[in-house]
Amino acid sequence: MTSLQLQNFVKHGKKIMAATTNYRSLLQVLNVPWPEKPTIFLKPTTSYITEGQAIEIPKGFSVNQEIELGVVIEKRCKDIDEREAMEHVGGYCVALDMTATCQMKEARSKGLPWLIGKGFDTACPVSRFISKDEIPDPNNLELWCCVNGKLEEEGNTKDFIFTIPYLISYISHFITLEPYDVLLTGTPGMSAVKPGDEITVFVL
Amino acid sequence: MTSLQLQNFVKHGKKIMAATTNYRSLLQVLNVPWPEKPTIFLKPTTSYITEGQAIEIPKGFSVNQEIELGVVIEKRCKDIDEREAMEHVGGYCVALDMTATCQMKEARSKGLPWLIGKGFDTACPVSRFISKDEIPDPNNLELWCCVNGKLEEEGNTKDFIFTIPYLISYISHFITLEPYDVLLTGTPGMSAVKPGDEITVFVL
Ligand SMILES: [Mg+2]
Ligand SMILES: [Mg+2]
Ligand SMILES: [Mg+2]
Repeated sequence: MTSLQLQNFVKHGKKIMAATTNYRSLLQVLNVPWPEKPTIFLKPTTSYITEGQAIEIPKGFSVNQEIELGVVIEKRCKDIDEREAMEHVGGYCVALDMTATCQMKEARSKGLPWLIGKGFDTACPVSRFISKDEIPDPNNLELWCCVNGKLEEEGNTKDFIFTIPYLISYISHFITLEPYDVLLTGTPGMSAVKPGDEITVFVL
Repeated sequence: MTSLQLQNFVKHGKKIMAATTNYRSLLQVLNVPWPEKPTIFLKPTTSYITEGQAIEIPKGFSVNQEIELGVVIEKRCKDIDEREAMEHVGGYCVALDMTATCQMKEARSKGLPWLIGKGFDTACPVSRFISKDEIPDPNNLELWCCVNGKLEEEGNTKDFIFTIPYLISYISHFITLEPYDVLLTGTPGMSAVKPGDEITVFVL
Protein backbone atom coordinates (compact mmCIF):
# COMPACT_ATOMS: atom_id res chain seq x y z
CA MET A 1 0.00 0.00 0.00
CA THR A 2 1.34 3.42 -0.91
CA SER A 3 1.02 6.71 0.92
CA LEU A 4 -1.38 7.76 -1.78
CA GLN A 5 -3.91 5.14 -0.69
CA LEU A 6 -3.30 5.80 3.01
CA GLN A 7 -4.38 9.40 2.42
CA ASN A 8 -7.87 7.95 2.32
CA PHE A 9 -7.68 6.44 5.81
CA VAL A 10 -10.85 8.24 6.89
CA LYS A 11 -12.83 6.67 4.06
CA HIS A 12 -11.45 3.13 4.30
CA GLY A 13 -10.61 2.69 7.99
CA LYS A 14 -12.68 0.37 10.16
CA LYS A 15 -11.21 1.06 13.60
CA ILE A 16 -10.11 4.01 15.67
CA MET A 17 -8.31 2.71 18.74
CA ALA A 18 -7.35 5.22 21.39
CA ALA A 19 -5.03 5.12 24.39
CA THR A 20 -5.86 7.08 27.48
CA THR A 21 -3.64 8.40 30.31
CA ASN A 22 -0.46 8.02 28.25
CA TYR A 23 1.53 11.16 29.18
CA ARG A 24 3.64 11.24 32.33
CA SER A 25 2.82 14.91 32.87
CA LEU A 26 -0.89 14.08 32.94
CA LEU A 27 -0.43 11.45 35.66
CA GLN A 28 0.89 14.19 37.91
CA VAL A 29 -1.99 16.53 37.11
CA LEU A 30 -4.63 13.81 37.62
CA ASN A 31 -2.76 12.41 40.63
CA VAL A 32 -3.18 8.80 39.51
CA PRO A 33 -0.62 5.98 39.84
CA TRP A 34 1.64 4.75 37.04
CA PRO A 35 -0.49 2.41 34.87
CA GLU A 36 0.56 -1.24 34.66
CA LYS A 37 -0.72 -1.61 31.11
CA PRO A 38 -2.23 0.60 28.38
CA THR A 39 -5.92 1.51 28.52
CA ILE A 40 -7.43 1.29 25.04
CA PHE A 41 -10.92 2.14 23.83
CA LEU A 42 -12.67 2.34 20.44
CA LYS A 43 -14.24 5.28 18.66
CA PRO A 44 -16.52 4.46 15.70
CA THR A 45 -15.39 5.67 12.28
CA THR A 46 -18.64 7.64 12.01
CA SER A 47 -16.99 10.03 14.49
CA TYR A 48 -14.40 11.13 11.88
CA ILE A 49 -14.49 14.63 10.47
CA THR A 50 -11.71 16.32 8.52
CA GLU A 51 -10.06 19.75 8.65
CA GLY A 52 -12.53 22.59 8.42
CA GLN A 53 -15.60 20.48 9.19
CA ALA A 54 -17.54 21.54 12.27
CA ILE A 55 -17.68 19.56 15.49
CA GLU A 56 -21.34 19.13 16.42
CA ILE A 57 -21.89 18.96 20.15
CA PRO A 58 -24.95 16.80 20.92
CA LYS A 59 -27.73 18.57 22.79
CA GLY A 60 -26.99 18.77 26.50
CA PHE A 61 -23.38 17.56 26.20
CA SER A 62 -20.35 19.37 27.63
CA VAL A 63 -17.20 18.48 25.75
CA ASN A 64 -13.43 18.64 26.14
CA GLN A 65 -10.88 18.60 23.34
CA GLU A 66 -7.84 16.36 23.63
CA ILE A 67 -5.04 16.78 21.08
CA GLU A 68 -3.46 13.48 20.10
CA LEU A 69 -0.98 12.07 17.63
CA GLY A 70 -2.72 9.48 15.45
CA VAL A 71 -0.82 6.55 13.97
CA VAL A 72 -2.12 5.20 10.64
CA ILE A 73 -1.60 1.46 10.20
CA GLU A 74 -0.33 0.31 6.81
CA LYS A 75 0.09 -3.46 7.25
CA ARG A 76 -2.15 -6.00 8.95
CA CYS A 77 -0.61 -7.31 12.16
CA LYS A 78 -1.46 -9.77 14.90
CA ASP A 79 0.65 -10.81 17.88
CA ILE A 80 3.68 -8.78 16.91
CA ASP A 81 6.75 -7.88 18.85
CA GLU A 82 7.48 -4.29 19.85
CA ARG A 83 10.65 -4.37 17.71
CA GLU A 84 8.68 -5.09 14.53
CA ALA A 85 5.78 -2.74 15.25
CA MET A 86 6.97 0.33 13.36
CA GLU A 87 7.18 -1.66 10.11
CA HIS A 88 3.37 -1.78 10.20
CA VAL A 89 2.95 1.98 10.49
CA GLY A 90 2.28 3.89 7.28
CA GLY A 91 2.11 7.44 8.62
CA TYR A 92 0.35 9.77 11.02
CA CYS A 93 -2.38 12.33 11.55
CA VAL A 94 -3.10 14.88 14.23
CA ALA A 95 -6.43 14.20 15.89
CA LEU A 96 -8.77 15.56 18.51
CA ASP A 97 -10.29 13.01 20.86
CA MET A 98 -13.46 14.96 21.61
CA THR A 99 -14.90 13.76 24.91
CA ALA A 100 -18.31 14.33 26.48
CA THR A 101 -17.47 14.94 30.12
CA CYS A 102 -20.81 14.12 31.82
CA GLN A 103 -21.22 10.91 29.83
CA MET A 104 -17.65 9.86 30.67
CA LYS A 105 -18.12 10.67 34.35
CA GLU A 106 -21.24 8.50 34.46
CA ALA A 107 -19.59 5.68 32.49
CA ARG A 108 -16.47 5.66 34.66
CA SER A 109 -18.37 5.76 37.94
CA LYS A 110 -20.87 3.03 36.96
CA GLY A 111 -18.42 0.80 35.06
CA LEU A 112 -20.36 1.30 31.82
CA PRO A 113 -19.02 1.46 28.25
CA TRP A 114 -17.40 4.67 26.98
CA LEU A 115 -19.11 4.63 23.58
CA ILE A 116 -21.48 7.60 23.79
CA GLY A 117 -19.00 9.84 25.66
CA LYS A 118 -16.19 9.16 23.18
CA GLY A 119 -17.98 8.11 20.01
CA PHE A 120 -20.65 10.64 19.13
CA ASP A 121 -20.68 11.86 15.52
CA THR A 122 -17.84 14.39 14.88
CA ALA A 123 -15.93 13.28 18.03
CA CYS A 124 -12.82 12.49 15.99
CA PRO A 125 -11.59 15.45 13.91
CA VAL A 126 -8.40 14.53 12.06
CA SER A 127 -5.79 16.30 9.95
CA ARG A 128 -4.67 15.18 6.54
CA PHE A 129 -2.48 12.07 6.33
CA ILE A 130 1.13 12.86 7.33
CA SER A 131 3.82 10.66 5.79
CA LYS A 132 6.59 9.02 7.84
CA ASP A 133 9.15 11.32 6.16
CA GLU A 134 7.44 14.33 7.69
CA ILE A 135 7.68 12.93 11.25
CA PRO A 136 11.05 11.19 11.55
CA ASP A 137 10.70 10.59 15.30
CA PRO A 138 7.06 10.19 16.42
CA ASN A 139 8.22 9.58 19.99
CA ASN A 140 9.65 13.13 20.12
CA LEU A 141 7.06 15.42 18.62
CA GLU A 142 5.83 18.68 20.08
CA LEU A 143 2.04 19.24 20.04
CA TRP A 144 0.14 22.47 20.66
CA CYS A 145 -3.59 23.09 20.75
CA CYS A 146 -5.17 26.54 20.72
CA VAL A 147 -8.81 27.43 21.34
CA ASN A 148 -9.83 30.77 19.83
CA GLY A 149 -6.15 31.57 19.35
CA LYS A 150 -5.20 30.95 23.00
CA LEU A 151 -2.79 28.12 23.82
CA GLU A 152 -4.71 25.59 25.92
CA GLU A 153 -2.62 22.48 25.60
CA GLU A 154 1.00 21.63 24.96
CA GLY A 155 3.00 18.43 25.17
CA ASN A 156 5.75 16.32 23.68
CA THR A 157 5.33 12.68 22.76
CA LYS A 158 8.68 11.90 24.42
CA ASP A 159 6.54 12.11 27.57
CA PHE A 160 4.60 8.95 26.52
CA ILE A 161 4.20 6.29 29.19
CA PHE A 162 3.72 3.62 26.51
CA THR A 163 5.55 4.28 23.22
CA ILE A 164 3.93 3.73 19.85
CA PRO A 165 5.64 0.35 19.27
CA TYR A 166 4.62 -0.78 22.74
CA LEU A 167 0.97 0.21 22.16
CA ILE A 168 0.83 -1.53 18.78
CA SER A 169 2.39 -4.70 20.14
CA TYR A 170 0.08 -4.69 23.18
CA ILE A 171 -3.11 -4.28 21.15
CA SER A 172 -1.97 -6.82 18.54
CA HIS A 173 -1.92 -9.56 21.17
CA PHE A 174 -5.71 -9.28 21.43
CA ILE A 175 -6.93 -7.47 18.33
CA THR A 176 -5.68 -7.60 14.74
CA LEU A 177 -4.64 -4.22 13.37
CA GLU A 178 -5.61 -3.63 9.76
CA PRO A 179 -4.55 -1.19 7.03
CA TYR A 180 -6.19 2.25 7.49
CA ASP A 181 -6.83 1.64 11.21
CA VAL A 182 -5.87 4.60 13.38
CA LEU A 183 -4.37 4.51 16.86
CA LEU A 184 -4.72 7.68 18.93
CA THR A 185 -1.86 7.86 21.40
CA GLY A 186 -3.41 9.82 24.27
CA THR A 187 -3.45 13.48 25.19
CA PRO A 188 -1.05 15.62 27.23
CA GLY A 189 -4.00 17.64 28.61
CA MET A 190 -7.51 18.81 27.83
CA SER A 191 -9.73 21.85 27.93
CA ALA A 192 -13.43 22.54 27.64
CA VAL A 193 -14.85 23.91 24.40
CA LYS A 194 -18.23 25.46 23.68
CA PRO A 195 -20.29 26.09 20.54
CA GLY A 196 -18.60 28.63 18.27
CA ASP A 197 -15.06 28.00 19.56
CA GLU A 198 -12.33 27.45 17.00
CA ILE A 199 -9.71 24.78 17.70
CA THR A 200 -6.31 24.94 15.99
CA VAL A 201 -3.52 22.39 16.33
CA PHE A 202 0.19 22.48 15.53
CA VAL A 203 2.89 19.83 15.57
CA LEU A 204 6.65 20.13 15.11
CA MET B 1 -29.05 -2.01 -1.48
CA THR B 2 -30.27 -5.53 -2.04
CA SER B 3 -30.17 -8.54 0.25
CA LEU B 4 -27.49 -9.91 -2.01
CA GLN B 5 -25.09 -7.15 -0.99
CA LEU B 6 -26.11 -7.29 2.67
CA GLN B 7 -25.01 -10.93 2.70
CA ASN B 8 -21.51 -9.49 2.79
CA PHE B 9 -22.08 -7.50 5.98
CA VAL B 10 -19.04 -9.12 7.65
CA LYS B 11 -16.77 -7.93 4.87
CA HIS B 12 -18.13 -4.42 4.45
CA GLY B 13 -19.35 -3.48 7.94
CA LYS B 14 -17.53 -0.86 9.97
CA LYS B 15 -19.38 -1.07 13.29
CA ILE B 16 -20.73 -3.72 15.62
CA MET B 17 -22.84 -2.00 18.26
CA ALA B 18 -24.11 -4.13 21.12
CA ALA B 19 -26.75 -3.63 23.80
CA THR B 20 -26.29 -5.14 27.22
CA THR B 21 -28.82 -6.06 29.93
CA ASN B 22 -31.73 -6.00 27.50
CA TYR B 23 -33.83 -8.99 28.64
CA ARG B 24 -36.29 -8.64 31.53
CA SER B 25 -35.55 -12.21 32.65
CA LEU B 26 -31.87 -11.34 33.02
CA LEU B 27 -32.61 -8.36 35.28
CA GLN B 28 -34.18 -10.76 37.75
CA VAL B 29 -31.23 -13.16 37.60
CA LEU B 30 -28.68 -10.38 38.00
CA ASN B 31 -30.85 -8.58 40.57
CA VAL B 32 -30.28 -5.16 39.00
CA PRO B 33 -32.85 -2.35 38.63
CA TRP B 34 -34.77 -1.54 35.45
CA PRO B 35 -32.40 0.49 33.23
CA GLU B 36 -33.40 4.06 32.38
CA LYS B 37 -31.72 3.92 28.98
CA PRO B 38 -29.95 1.38 26.78
CA THR B 39 -26.30 0.53 27.45
CA ILE B 40 -24.41 0.26 24.17
CA PHE B 41 -20.81 -0.72 23.49
CA LEU B 42 -18.70 -1.37 20.37
CA LYS B 43 -16.97 -4.52 19.20
CA PRO B 44 -14.36 -4.11 16.44
CA THR B 45 -15.12 -5.80 13.11
CA THR B 46 -11.87 -7.77 13.47
CA SER B 47 -13.80 -9.79 16.07
CA TYR B 48 -16.09 -11.26 13.37
CA ILE B 49 -15.87 -14.93 12.46
CA THR B 50 -18.43 -16.89 10.48
CA GLU B 51 -20.11 -20.28 10.91
CA GLY B 52 -17.66 -23.12 11.35
CA GLN B 53 -14.68 -20.90 12.16
CA ALA B 54 -13.09 -21.49 15.55
CA ILE B 55 -13.30 -19.08 18.46
CA GLU B 56 -9.76 -18.49 19.73
CA ILE B 57 -9.62 -17.80 23.43
CA PRO B 58 -6.65 -15.52 24.22
CA LYS B 59 -4.11 -17.00 26.63
CA GLY B 60 -5.26 -16.69 30.23
CA PHE B 61 -8.81 -15.55 29.35
CA SER B 62 -11.99 -17.17 30.69
CA VAL B 63 -14.91 -16.58 28.35
CA ASN B 64 -18.70 -16.71 28.33
CA GLN B 65 -20.91 -17.09 25.31
CA GLU B 66 -23.97 -14.85 24.93
CA ILE B 67 -26.46 -15.64 22.18
CA GLU B 68 -27.89 -12.51 20.56
CA LEU B 69 -30.08 -11.50 17.67
CA GLY B 70 -28.08 -9.21 15.36
CA VAL B 71 -29.78 -6.54 13.28
CA VAL B 72 -28.12 -5.65 9.96
CA ILE B 73 -28.56 -2.01 8.93
CA GLU B 74 -29.44 -1.35 5.31
CA LYS B 75 -29.88 2.43 5.16
CA ARG B 76 -27.82 5.20 6.71
CA CYS B 77 -29.68 6.93 9.53
CA LYS B 78 -29.12 9.77 11.97
CA ASP B 79 -31.55 11.19 14.53
CA ILE B 80 -34.47 9.04 13.51
CA ASP B 81 -37.74 8.39 15.23
CA GLU B 82 -38.60 4.97 16.63
CA ARG B 83 -41.51 4.71 14.17
CA GLU B 84 -39.18 4.99 11.15
CA ALA B 85 -36.40 2.81 12.51
CA MET B 86 -37.41 -0.52 10.94
CA GLU B 87 -37.24 0.99 7.45
CA HIS B 88 -33.47 1.15 7.95
CA VAL B 89 -33.11 -2.52 8.81
CA GLY B 90 -32.10 -4.86 5.99
CA GLY B 91 -32.10 -8.18 7.83
CA TYR B 92 -30.64 -10.14 10.70
CA CYS B 93 -28.02 -12.59 11.88
CA VAL B 94 -27.61 -14.74 14.94
CA ALA B 95 -24.48 -13.80 16.85
CA LEU B 96 -22.46 -14.76 19.87
CA ASP B 97 -21.19 -11.91 22.01
CA MET B 98 -18.14 -13.70 23.37
CA THR B 99 -17.07 -12.04 26.60
CA ALA B 100 -13.86 -12.36 28.61
CA THR B 101 -15.11 -12.45 32.19
CA CYS B 102 -11.96 -11.39 34.12
CA GLN B 103 -11.30 -8.48 31.76
CA MET B 104 -14.94 -7.35 32.03
CA LYS B 105 -14.89 -7.64 35.82
CA GLU B 106 -11.79 -5.44 35.97
CA ALA B 107 -13.20 -2.93 33.44
CA ARG B 108 -16.53 -2.65 35.25
CA SER B 109 -15.00 -2.28 38.70
CA LYS B 110 -12.40 0.32 37.62
CA GLY B 111 -14.61 2.23 35.19
CA LEU B 112 -12.32 1.30 32.27
CA PRO B 113 -13.25 0.64 28.62
CA TRP B 114 -14.73 -2.73 27.66
CA LEU B 115 -12.67 -3.16 24.49
CA ILE B 116 -10.36 -6.05 25.37
CA GLY B 117 -13.05 -8.02 27.26
CA LYS B 118 -15.56 -7.72 24.42
CA GLY B 119 -13.42 -7.09 21.35
CA PHE B 120 -10.67 -9.71 21.12
CA ASP B 121 -10.27 -11.42 17.74
CA THR B 122 -13.04 -14.04 17.15
CA ALA B 123 -15.27 -12.52 19.89
CA CYS B 124 -18.13 -12.04 17.42
CA PRO B 125 -19.14 -15.27 15.66
CA VAL B 126 -22.10 -14.64 13.34
CA SER B 127 -24.46 -16.71 11.23
CA ARG B 128 -25.21 -16.08 7.58
CA PHE B 129 -27.34 -13.05 6.72
CA ILE B 130 -31.04 -13.73 7.41
CA SER B 131 -33.52 -11.77 5.30
CA LYS B 132 -36.48 -9.89 6.76
CA ASP B 133 -38.86 -12.42 5.15
CA GLU B 134 -37.37 -15.17 7.27
CA ILE B 135 -37.97 -13.30 10.55
CA PRO B 136 -41.35 -11.55 10.23
CA ASP B 137 -41.40 -10.43 13.89
CA PRO B 138 -37.91 -9.86 15.34
CA ASN B 139 -39.47 -8.77 18.63
CA ASN B 140 -40.93 -12.27 19.10
CA LEU B 141 -38.19 -14.72 18.24
CA GLU B 142 -37.18 -17.75 20.26
CA LEU B 143 -33.40 -18.27 20.71
CA TRP B 144 -31.60 -21.37 21.99
CA CYS B 145 -27.92 -21.94 22.57
CA CYS B 146 -26.37 -25.35 23.19
CA VAL B 147 -22.83 -26.12 24.33
CA ASN B 148 -21.66 -29.63 23.43
CA GLY B 149 -25.28 -30.50 22.65
CA LYS B 150 -26.61 -29.40 26.06
CA LEU B 151 -29.07 -26.50 26.21
CA GLU B 152 -27.38 -23.68 28.13
CA GLU B 153 -29.41 -20.66 27.16
CA GLU B 154 -32.93 -19.94 26.00
CA GLY B 155 -34.91 -16.77 25.55
CA ASN B 156 -37.46 -14.91 23.48
CA THR B 157 -36.92 -11.43 22.10
CA LYS B 158 -40.43 -10.45 23.27
CA ASP B 159 -38.65 -10.19 26.64
CA PHE B 160 -36.57 -7.20 25.37
CA ILE B 161 -36.45 -4.19 27.66
CA PHE B 162 -35.66 -1.93 24.70
CA THR B 163 -37.12 -3.04 21.37
CA ILE B 164 -35.13 -2.97 18.13
CA PRO B 165 -36.75 0.29 16.90
CA TYR B 166 -36.10 1.90 20.28
CA LEU B 167 -32.42 0.88 20.26
CA ILE B 168 -31.90 2.12 16.69
CA SER B 169 -33.58 5.44 17.42
CA TYR B 170 -31.62 5.87 20.67
CA ILE B 171 -28.23 5.20 19.08
CA SER B 172 -29.05 7.35 16.03
CA HIS B 173 -29.37 10.43 18.22
CA PHE B 174 -25.63 10.22 18.94
CA ILE B 175 -24.09 8.00 16.29
CA THR B 176 -24.93 7.63 12.59
CA LEU B 177 -25.84 4.08 11.60
CA GLU B 178 -24.48 3.00 8.24
CA PRO B 179 -25.24 0.19 5.79
CA TYR B 180 -23.71 -3.13 6.89
CA ASP B 181 -23.47 -2.01 10.54
CA VAL B 182 -24.69 -4.65 12.99
CA LEU B 183 -26.56 -4.09 16.23
CA LEU B 184 -26.48 -6.93 18.74
CA THR B 185 -29.60 -6.79 20.88
CA GLY B 186 -28.38 -8.32 24.16
CA THR B 187 -28.47 -11.82 25.58
CA PRO B 188 -31.10 -13.66 27.63
CA GLY B 189 -28.33 -15.43 29.59
CA MET B 190 -24.77 -16.70 29.37
CA SER B 191 -22.59 -19.67 30.14
CA ALA B 192 -18.89 -20.37 30.35
CA VAL B 193 -17.15 -22.17 27.51
CA LYS B 194 -13.70 -23.76 27.40
CA PRO B 195 -11.30 -24.81 24.63
CA GLY B 196 -12.75 -27.66 22.56
CA ASP B 197 -16.41 -26.89 23.36
CA GLU B 198 -18.84 -26.73 20.45
CA ILE B 199 -21.50 -24.00 20.48
CA THR B 200 -24.69 -24.43 18.45
CA VAL B 201 -27.48 -21.86 18.12
CA PHE B 202 -31.09 -22.09 16.92
CA VAL B 203 -33.76 -19.48 16.31
CA LEU B 204 -37.44 -19.89 15.49
MG1 LIG C 1 -15.92 0.77 24.46
MG1 LIG D 1 -7.88 10.90 24.62
MG1 LIG E 1 -23.98 -9.31 25.12
